[in-house]
Amino acid sequence: MSTNTVRVVATLNEKGLDYELVPVDLRTGAHKQPSFLALNPFGQIPVLDDGDIVLFESRAISRYIASEYKETGPDLLRSGGGSAETAALEVWLEVESQQFGPPIADLVFELSIKPLLGGTTDPAVVEKQAEKLGKVLDVYEERLSKNKYLAGDHYTLADLHHMPYTFYLMATPQAKLVTSRPSVLAWWHDISARPAWKKTAASIPI
Amino acid sequence: MSTNTVRVVATLNEKGLDYELVPVDLRTGAHKQPSFLALNPFGQIPVLDDGDIVLFESRAISRYIASEYKETGPDLLRSGGGSAETAALEVWLEVESQQFGPPIADLVFELSIKPLLGGTTDPAVVEKQAEKLGKVLDVYEERLSKNKYLAGDHYTLADLHHMPYTFYLMATPQAKLVTSRPSVLAWWHDISARPAWKKTAASIPI
Repeated sequence: MSTNTVRVVATLNEKGLDYELVPVDLRTGAHKQPSFLALNPFGQIPVLDDGDIVLFESRAISRYIASEYKETGPDLLRSGGGSAETAALEVWLEVESQQFGPPIADLVFELSIKPLLGGTTDPAVVEKQAEKLGKVLDVYEERLSKNKYLAGDHYTLADLHHMPYTFYLMATPQAKLVTSRPSVLAWWHDISARPAWKKTAASIPI
Repeated sequence: MSTNTVRVVATLNEKGLDYELVPVDLRTGAHKQPSFLALNPFGQIPVLDDGDIVLFESRAISRYIASEYKETGPDLLRSGGGSAETAALEVWLEVESQQFGPPIADLVFELSIKPLLGGTTDPAVVEKQAEKLGKVLDVYEERLSKNKYLAGDHYTLADLHHMPYTFYLMATPQAKLVTSRPSVLAWWHDISARPAWKKTAASIPI
């Protein structure tokens, strides 16, 4: 269920790579035990163990996979692209991380995760974060009315990084933040119809 | 004075590239005017205008510069490095963005920026964010006791991205978060002694 793990799994599926999922039981604090801290000293999932190389931070893992396995499946970093495409890719990877990520994480936590943990959704938090995310998505609407994908004509890691949280958001009443913006909605329909994403989504237990 | 602008200027100086700084007057809201929003729809500084290519988000800009001008000056993305170095570089770029950035930004705001804006530093916020940042720096201490730089043996963009906020922190009483950790302090002494950083720091009006 971890959105950060979904981000990595989506990348692996997009590249058609084989992998084994090793569950870490957060309820018993397995992520704070020495054996796990030896893999990620920050004690967070996911971790990728790729032969001799161990890494953490989901966006770093997905970027590593896209770079290390660029010959396998679609080139999610468009390494053959020109300077303008590289620039757009870097910009929208950062926009996801800095502008889109924080409000959608708070919103999904409040609407979907908090009730699962026995808490109650606070409508004031929902309203505040929905307003923030709406302003961010206004910029996306403009961008996606002129470009099929965030970095231009091709699906890239910049699009993929948005998928875990958008998937969760679409299962809440705040899906309207996406459905009310035609270009954002068309983009979501397109990227969520990809076979690799369908495989990923089918493995999420919600 | 903008830490995000300093991040980009530091990258340009490290690469030895020529540039022109165009001030944007935040006090008069110049960053929310149509002419600026056409450059960055999120209305934030800095923006890089590199010929036909315009981009925003400081970490995206610095990565673009490092990639586009990799032949000029040090190769800050270690494009010739092996898989392990690439992995470490991606991990520590993300650690800066996700773990180090949020608490140090709050801390520097509370200690240095808020008083400039006529506010009063809240000791409770300082204590909370200092504790958070301290835990993050404990991981850095361990990492830097075994590696000269965050990604390994060479100075990279992962180190550089930490410099603007660390520079500001070092001018506050919370500099002790750095000075009390010998390996972090040795790293800071090393990277802040680089000629490109000295040039950058000399241009910061504090």
